[in-house]
Amino acid sequence: MKALIKTEPGEGFELTNVEEPKIINSDDVKIRVLRASVCGTDVHIYEWNKWAEDRIKTPQIGGHEFVGEVVEVGPEVKNLKKGDIVSGETHIPCKVCYQCKTGKMHVCKDMEILGVDRDGVFAEYTVVPEIVLWKIDESIPLKYASVMEPLGNAIHTATATDLRGKIVLITGAGPIGAMAIEIAKISGAAAVIVSEISDYRIKMAKDMGADLVINPAETDLHAEIAKFTDGHGIDVLLEMSGSVKALNDGIIALTNGGFASILGVYNDNEIPFVMNTAVFKNITIQTITGRKMFETWHIASQLLKYKKIDLEKVVTHELDLKDYKKAFELMMSGKSGKIILKIAD
Amino acid sequence: MKALIKTEPGEGFELTNVEEPKIINSDDVKIRVLRASVCGTDVHIYEWNKWAEDRIKTPQIGGHEFVGEVVEVGPEVKNLKKGDIVSGETHIPCKVCYQCKTGKMHVCKDMEILGVDRDGVFAEYTVVPEIVLWKIDESIPLKYASVMEPLGNAIHTATATDLRGKIVLITGAGPIGAMAIEIAKISGAAAVIVSEISDYRIKMAKDMGADLVINPAETDLHAEIAKFTDGHGIDVLLEMSGSVKALNDGIIALTNGGFASILGVYNDNEIPFVMNTAVFKNITIQTITGRKMFETWHIASQLLKYKKIDLEKVVTHELDLKDYKKAFELMMSGKSGKIILKIAD
Amino acid sequence: MKALIKTEPGEGFELTNVEEPKIINSDDVKIRVLRASVCGTDVHIYEWNKWAEDRIKTPQIGGHEFVGEVVEVGPEVKNLKKGDIVSGETHIPCKVCYQCKTGKMHVCKDMEILGVDRDGVFAEYTVVPEIVLWKIDESIPLKYASVMEPLGNAIHTATATDLRGKIVLITGAGPIGAMAIEIAKISGAAAVIVSEISDYRIKMAKDMGADLVINPAETDLHAEIAKFTDGHGIDVLLEMSGSVKALNDGIIALTNGGFASILGVYNDNEIPFVMNTAVFKNITIQTITGRKMFETWHIASQLLKYKKIDLEKVVTHELDLKDYKKAFELMMSGKSGKIILKIAD
Amino acid sequence: MKALIKTEPGEGFELTNVEEPKIINSDDVKIRVLRASVCGTDVHIYEWNKWAEDRIKTPQIGGHEFVGEVVEVGPEVKNLKKGDIVSGETHIPCKVCYQCKTGKMHVCKDMEILGVDRDGVFAEYTVVPEIVLWKIDESIPLKYASVMEPLGNAIHTATATDLRGKIVLITGAGPIGAMAIEIAKISGAAAVIVSEISDYRIKMAKDMGADLVINPAETDLHAEIAKFTDGHGIDVLLEMSGSVKALNDGIIALTNGGFASILGVYNDNEIPFVMNTAVFKNITIQTITGRKMFETWHIASQLLKYKKIDLEKVVTHELDLKDYKKAFELMMSGKSGKIILKIAD
Repeated sequence: MKALIKTEPGEGFELTNVEEPKIINSDDVKIRVLRASVCGTDVHIYEWNKWAEDRIKTPQIGGHEFVGEVVEVGPEVKNLKKGDIVSGETHIPCKVCYQCKTGKMHVCKDMEILGVDRDGVFAEYTVVPEIVLWKIDESIPLKYASVMEPLGNAIHTATATDLRGKIVLITGAGPIGAMAIEIAKISGAAAVIVSEISDYRIKMAKDMGADLVINPAETDLHAEIAKFTDGHGIDVLLEMSGSVKALNDGIIALTNGGFASILGVYNDNEIPFVMNTAVFKNITIQTITGRKMFETWHIASQLLKYKKIDLEKVVTHELDLKDYKKAFELMMSGKSGKIILKIAD
Repeated sequence: MKALIKTEPGEGFELTNVEEPKIINSDDVKIRVLRASVCGTDVHIYEWNKWAEDRIKTPQIGGHEFVGEVVEVGPEVKNLKKGDIVSGETHIPCKVCYQCKTGKMHVCKDMEILGVDRDGVFAEYTVVPEIVLWKIDESIPLKYASVMEPLGNAIHTATATDLRGKIVLITGAGPIGAMAIEIAKISGAAAVIVSEISDYRIKMAKDMGADLVINPAETDLHAEIAKFTDGHGIDVLLEMSGSVKALNDGIIALTNGGFASILGVYNDNEIPFVMNTAVFKNITIQTITGRKMFETWHIASQLLKYKKIDLEKVVTHELDLKDYKKAFELMMSGKSGKIILKIAD
Repeated sequence: MKALIKTEPGEGFELTNVEEPKIINSDDVKIRVLRASVCGTDVHIYEWNKWAEDRIKTPQIGGHEFVGEVVEVGPEVKNLKKGDIVSGETHIPCKVCYQCKTGKMHVCKDMEILGVDRDGVFAEYTVVPEIVLWKIDESIPLKYASVMEPLGNAIHTATATDLRGKIVLITGAGPIGAMAIEIAKISGAAAVIVSEISDYRIKMAKDMGADLVINPAETDLHAEIAKFTDGHGIDVLLEMSGSVKALNDGIIALTNGGFASILGVYNDNEIPFVMNTAVFKNITIQTITGRKMFETWHIASQLLKYKKIDLEKVVTHELDLKDYKKAFELMMSGKSGKIILKIAD
Repeated sequence: MKALIKTEPGEGFELTNVEEPKIINSDDVKIRVLRASVCGTDVHIYEWNKWAEDRIKTPQIGGHEFVGEVVEVGPEVKNLKKGDIVSGETHIPCKVCYQCKTGKMHVCKDMEILGVDRDGVFAEYTVVPEIVLWKIDESIPLKYASVMEPLGNAIHTATATDLRGKIVLITGAGPIGAMAIEIAKISGAAAVIVSEISDYRIKMAKDMGADLVINPAETDLHAEIAKFTDGHGIDVLLEMSGSVKALNDGIIALTNGGFASILGVYNDNEIPFVMNTAVFKNITIQTITGRKMFETWHIASQLLKYKKIDLEKVVTHELDLKDYKKAFELMMSGKSGKIILKIAD
């Protein structure tokens, strides 16, 4: 089958022919991949940055965001059958640790990550255990089903607290930040403010319907917020940029008793953080990773099924698998929303 | 001054001239009433039902939903000044009981109710303590400011749980139920289903944008819900009808682990309730009265200020105070949303 | 093997020899039962009441509370091995419904109940799927491991809200009510009040350390509570009696804004309930069934492992399986706490 | 009257005679101080550190933790009368900002701090507004009533999450940390682990009943925790040390999905913080300042009234006001729990 594979350490992926994966465990499901989408993590692996060098073992197929069709199921698979359309979790849980037994499977202690710790989905076929699969309602277009995993990040981050009547600041309007704008808007936020420095993303944020977009490189973030909110400040920070400055500015902008949800990952593990500011404000900080399995997926699914969110402006490109280089170049330029790779019909 | 007053036990109100109220306590605020709106409770007093007969002492001015202009403040009033536009709480708290001291002022043990236990707002002037007043942002139209109290009931009921991705059933689409549709919609509900038997209100529910409106007198509520939700049932019940049947049907329609928010008040205190059904479903029931002081008012205020809710279709009539009989007749016919009485410009 | 079996419709169980159960599904686990304990449900089946008549199909082995030793595992069992000591859930979930996929497995829509819908644990061996089993820490005595399921009911009920500094009323001090006293006490309750009419249980409640035990048949519950709490009333009701009067009295005793957790099951599904009282108090009612899988089990386990709860006074009898008639007679007399049946060493 | 006053910038306090404070505002209450206790903040002012130099204006009376007797009330005081015994909040709120109007008075935007921004309680008399006062139940000994404010910090920190069945790590066993041990123990923690480096405080932690006390300067904190918890790690961190290392070690020790409550204040506002560790664990961090007004006070009050907590081992010294130098020296040595200054009988 065709697959996008990192054959050896170094930059890039190779589109080549490899053997089809087989069902090994009795709960495995074999999927014909229809669409896959490109994540920042895939870009790190493509670029072969320090993290990728330390973590990725070659040869390995990349990719973890996908939608596909079930073509074969192991003997213990209970809930899926040939022909079902599925998307799925990147986090493959062990099922037996404390986290897995108490509703926190997404932070399983022995988690394996699709496309990072094992072969991914940039291929004609993939095999994953049933536990990570989520059946797609037929009303949901393939291109949106393919991005339900990153959409889930936006939902997990934005649903960590009630947003009704709140002033929400989203720092960073990359693809997930842009989806978070949509989620915040349909969550009853009084206003969604976005802080972003890239022109492309500023435009995308405006197109997504942000009430106010601030470029902190050009204007005073705190002054703009104070003006827009009549001195109230923000109630909720959704930090999605991975920028230490954006994070600390967001904490400083919070009104006393506010809430911060942090999805960003930073260049260093130890970062300078305005902890006393946080302490004196008596705030709640929720750090976010992954998606709740499967509360988050259920929310995403229902919102798409009943057409309560619109992802049209954030899924900006759909390319054939063979044009993967263009996809990665676009992603690296920062001038795209989500990019879909079409693998099969 | 002119006032709508219940002069003695019996039906109706009289529009007559009475003395202007005076500031007595040092935290009192005198308000020139601009708009007042008519509540079901006012109708009970107008009709002089059993409850009214037991509770209301005459002579007394009716009404409790209002917006007005501050014309005089007592010496200890700190936050308001002449000229401020204000709406306010119907629940006048004692400030010192356990509830008042721990953030539950709206269920104060020694509460006095405006227009029920003391003179109300259907008059040119009213005097209330500063603690119940809420300053109105100048961007908010008077007619919407006047209904912030019942809007607060809708918000209190609908914000008792997270609605994102949820199937919400609202039983009863009177004025507050209709406002709850709007709140549920901007709260990220996957779908808002309404159960209602009056043609007028069915139309209002549809106009407010309900995803599905069921008339349980004509079709099978449970079958309709099952079909619309592909067998899932409802996640959240907002009971706003005061109908025992609607309540029990709502509980039966809940999916296991669901949530019910009950604003309805029933004809009898003891009602037949499907408690075992509730127990085996492991649900949460939140009973609702009043509005959180002032978390609910803040949400209402921000949503109106930033134009995130639209009350146009639920505020159906605006009449002069002198036409109050028409207002009460309309209310009693069930063929209205909120009705505003214009008292001054 | 020996088993306590309902051979045909009618009163009683028969202790007889039946075939050992076999592993059928690949995730089945065969357990040598060491201890089992007797639940009120078992008593209903023994007595053959209306509910049992409608629900139980004969022949069937009774019992669902147990601790045992793993003797054989199916090929797909991952987390257990021969020799492990286990207790387990009575609720056997389907794993694939909405509830099972979103952390609410204990209210699975297609649940099967051990000892009710299929053969139970009053036998030398039992076979159940791995999903319901909970590994027992070696520090936990067998007799306490055997009652972790009903202890879980007490924990599920008492942990539904924060009890720190709260006045807690427990209505009904049967075995689970008595365990709830212990849980409420170690949860930081300011005071635990118990309402109970049986002399035996009144004594057990006092032995468990209740701060005040009221017999509502002899004194005025509300007056006693008012006196003990200086007029505050109760903050939290844990309804464990299944008595409609106890439930309504508990709701009436709640302070405004209070919390009620209802584990009781009532003789009729529709009961007269003081709903308006509940509505005007603005309270939260949490209905309880089963135990969270496995958050509740984890709490039970940790409290027993680190010796933070003491069940000595509530596990009142330990009898040999052959003395089962005595066990059921004791249970029916109401003059016991939990009764353990010893099945093997 | 006698008062402990900072007459001019520099180290120490002076015990001297000053004029009695007078009731100025109509809601003022004049109190004869009976006991006051010494806080770390008082020590900073005594020592005249950088923070004190920037913040404190002289001359000013120190102290903010107290219990006293009401001797005079302003004309608008409603809930207190001569002879009442009261303790009170250090945080004097404005009553009108967003925080004050929505149940977050303790993080009022325009807060004034007793003994920091205005004259404090190390004096025979003090005058404060009624809003900050809390009536003391007569069953509560004066020395415990005097420490209800710092006890409230411990309660605010330890009640930020449910502790039942949890492994709790408290970093720092100074007086508030020691009180947090007591609160965690009565909150149903499975085990309370304390990390502390001072011999005196290690002993106090053990005396308070910590299940395990670790000196991270001498042994490997993470290894000890892993051993004690069989590899589980901690569920909850209560950071009370103000040590950056303790904070980061605590975050690292948290199990995935855990909870951290941070009361500590750090030497610098920006501290190196292990944010990526936090992000990948998907944890909740609650920063803490002050006490909820007055939910926290109510909890403290009920626990003391019903004798559910024991502060005997943490209130280690009771000295006469004239021996204040000894009190401050003891505090600075780190070899004390709470120290009470006796001002009057």
